[in-house]
Amino acid sequence: MAVGLHDLPPLYPVPGIRLGTTAAGIRKKDRRDLVVIECTAGTQVAATFTKNRFCAAPVIVAREHLSRNAPRALLINTGFANAGTGAPGIEDARASCAALAKLMGCAGNEVLPFSTGVIGERFPLERLVAGLPGCLANLGEDRWEDAARGIMTTDTLPKGSSRQFRVGNHTVTVTGITKGAGMIRPDMATMLAFVATDAAISQKALQACIMEAVAKSFNRITVDGDTSTNDACVLLATGMAGNAVIDAPQGDAYVIFAETITAVFTELAQAIVRDAEGATKFITVEVRGGKSESDCLDVAYTIAHSPLVKTAFFASDPNWGRILAAIGRAPVASLDVSAVSVHLNEVCVVHNGALAPDYSEAKGLAVMRLPEIVIGVNLGAGSSSARIWTSDLSHDYVRINAEYRS
Amino acid sequence: MAVGLHDLPPLYPVPGIRLGTTAAGIRKKDRRDLVVIECTAGTQVAATFTKNRFCAAPVIVAREHLSRNAPRALLINTGFANAGTGAPGIEDARASCAALAKLMGCAGNEVLPFSTGVIGERFPLERLVAGLPGCLANLGEDRWEDAARGIMTTDTLPKGSSRQFRVGNHTVTVTGITKGAGMIRPDMATMLAFVATDAAISQKALQACIMEAVAKSFNRITVDGDTSTNDACVLLATGMAGNAVIDAPQGDAYVIFAETITAVFTELAQAIVRDAEGATKFITVEVRGGKSESDCLDVAYTIAHSPLVKTAFFASDPNWGRILAAIGRAPVASLDVSAVSVHLNEVCVVHNGALAPDYSEAKGLAVMRLPEIVIGVNLGAGSSSARIWTSDLSHDYVRINAEYRS
Repeated sequence: MAVGLHDLPPLYPVPGIRLGTTAAGIRKKDRRDLVVIECTAGTQVAATFTKNRFCAAPVIVAREHLSRNAPRALLINTGFANAGTGAPGIEDARASCAALAKLMGCAGNEVLPFSTGVIGERFPLERLVAGLPGCLANLGEDRWEDAARGIMTTDTLPKGSSRQFRVGNHTVTVTGITKGAGMIRPDMATMLAFVATDAAISQKALQACIMEAVAKSFNRITVDGDTSTNDACVLLATGMAGNAVIDAPQGDAYVIFAETITAVFTELAQAIVRDAEGATKFITVEVRGGKSESDCLDVAYTIAHSPLVKTAFFASDPNWGRILAAIGRAPVASLDVSAVSVHLNEVCVVHNGALAPDYSEAKGLAVMRLPEIVIGVNLGAGSSSARIWTSDLSHDYVRINAEYRS
Repeated sequence: MAVGLHDLPPLYPVPGIRLGTTAAGIRKKDRRDLVVIECTAGTQVAATFTKNRFCAAPVIVAREHLSRNAPRALLINTGFANAGTGAPGIEDARASCAALAKLMGCAGNEVLPFSTGVIGERFPLERLVAGLPGCLANLGEDRWEDAARGIMTTDTLPKGSSRQFRVGNHTVTVTGITKGAGMIRPDMATMLAFVATDAAISQKALQACIMEAVAKSFNRITVDGDTSTNDACVLLATGMAGNAVIDAPQGDAYVIFAETITAVFTELAQAIVRDAEGATKFITVEVRGGKSESDCLDVAYTIAHSPLVKTAFFASDPNWGRILAAIGRAPVASLDVSAVSVHLNEVCVVHNGALAPDYSEAKGLAVMRLPEIVIGVNLGAGSSSARIWTSDLSHDYVRINAEYRS
């Protein structure tokens, strides 16, 4: 049950980007599981990948290809993550790129591979390769929604975001899709996210922008604290909008571009949390008054990862003691508990480290029954702040993850 | 459902220690919820407490009393943790000590208070005080089992351990009880544990022993990564065994004493994990081949806290990819994934960072269906090692914690 996530918004085509999808039967039958995103010659590409040391074969190969050549296509499969598969997995990833390149008439290292699904098993290379002509046969600029569905695994809804803005007399479009519902604690990257724009921008400025935007969006969500082996976020810029090239990460055009990219990334990142495995609540954790942003993040993640806090939210139980206990064990250097306050939305629950005088269980319950809740913590120690998004821990999280491979 | 935990073993009386229990109706009716442990004059006491900054009122008061006077009694209530209760909670804790002291004819600061239960609400001081005469009326050296039952909260079984050993011609007894099933990630202390011995030992040697034993037992277990506000472990030594006083933490008598205390602590700590909320599996995580013990512990706890690993164990699913992913995101400075191996009991699952050649799903399944499983990780980087104990994440964990206050 996704929280506050409904049908996809309109996804504007991005000139220079075509998408094709097919049901290749990679792990399950009759399910779209293979996607090709083709980009026009001269497209600039920026990307971030998981920091998990057990990164997947496609992550290793995509990084290598990116360092050698400008990509002409992204190839994404679901069903198998191609992680923990050793040297044979890397060969499989390279072979899938080579097969697509042959059909497209480009070089193998002009294709970037991405996989998501079960860890530790090789994917069926033959079925994947057999599906490629089907993807190419339906390539189109208006196939973003198909692609959003084609990259889903335990997601219950497709996730996309699209915006337009003006640079001088030129309209610039940004459209992106993402997937992910569990094993979510991105670290310098995310689950799979593919965002494209027709803005004309240098690779250097594009890379600066992706780092800035990821830090504020995908790197601020957690479902279960588990960083995936396959996280990847790719930002494509075709340059076809006709605007004067944004050359460096500064100036008015860059600022509005970066703001729009960050807004699209944030909407996509929040969509992942809204559709988190088993989620019944969308929870924002805002920590203020810290000595440093890192202290605020430590407190926020300790709250967001606490199974006791998460089950209390699932139960709509204003068991604020569990929030205090999480704050109290957060790995910050010093904490004056008598300066701490906690709000649930507008309701002050804890003041000066103890129950707020005018708090009542009824007020707490009224907030906890809402589907979207802000946990506001003030550490009373400084002027730094941080905000992250997370979900609750429900029966369905356990069911989904206990049954995942069955 | 406790894993491999059955009836209490025989709990030998400890000369100089008497225990009394009653149902005071503190939070629920007709349930033993109040315990007094009386110790003879001259008893040495060592204790460790939670490092959670939001420590409970009884922890603050017990620390203060310990620094002022030798304790004559421990007073333990369940139902309310008396945590997050501010200054009134501290007054309540002091008042309960004073009430018991008055009945016993000692000073208020010769009583140490301990509480466990719901955080954030004051306990009913009047009902607690009214229950004290009942506790004192049934004081006895043979009431360890009653006391073990009297300190339970979400525990499904009472937990105790008892051993005897010889020092010269003297038999020394060690008997202990503990409680705890959730909010378990002790940090330099534990949930509530009370262990007594009639050994004659100096306070200095006793404190050294408790630190050594806690580090190897209660500080090596985790259920949900949530450190409690009320963790406390107390070790009492009445000196009535007649042995030559163990004066310092060295020598044969100290070594056998410390080994026995560590064995009792370990049995009690493991009992907490065996009775963890909703547990269906008892899991040992052994990490070897690390550059440092702290690296090994970081890897072990990252595995033990992963909701995805825990749900896979609940499902008896040998989804070893989740273990690899957890190792890959553990906060260790460097990790050569190609040197990593993983065993499930005797079955080699991962060799040199990839699926072991002779592994089969059938072998993995056969291990995963057992109630007790050892996850063996070799980092291949050094000679350090560490071992911790944890449980799986089941539907019942969510149910118990979602319904806790209802």
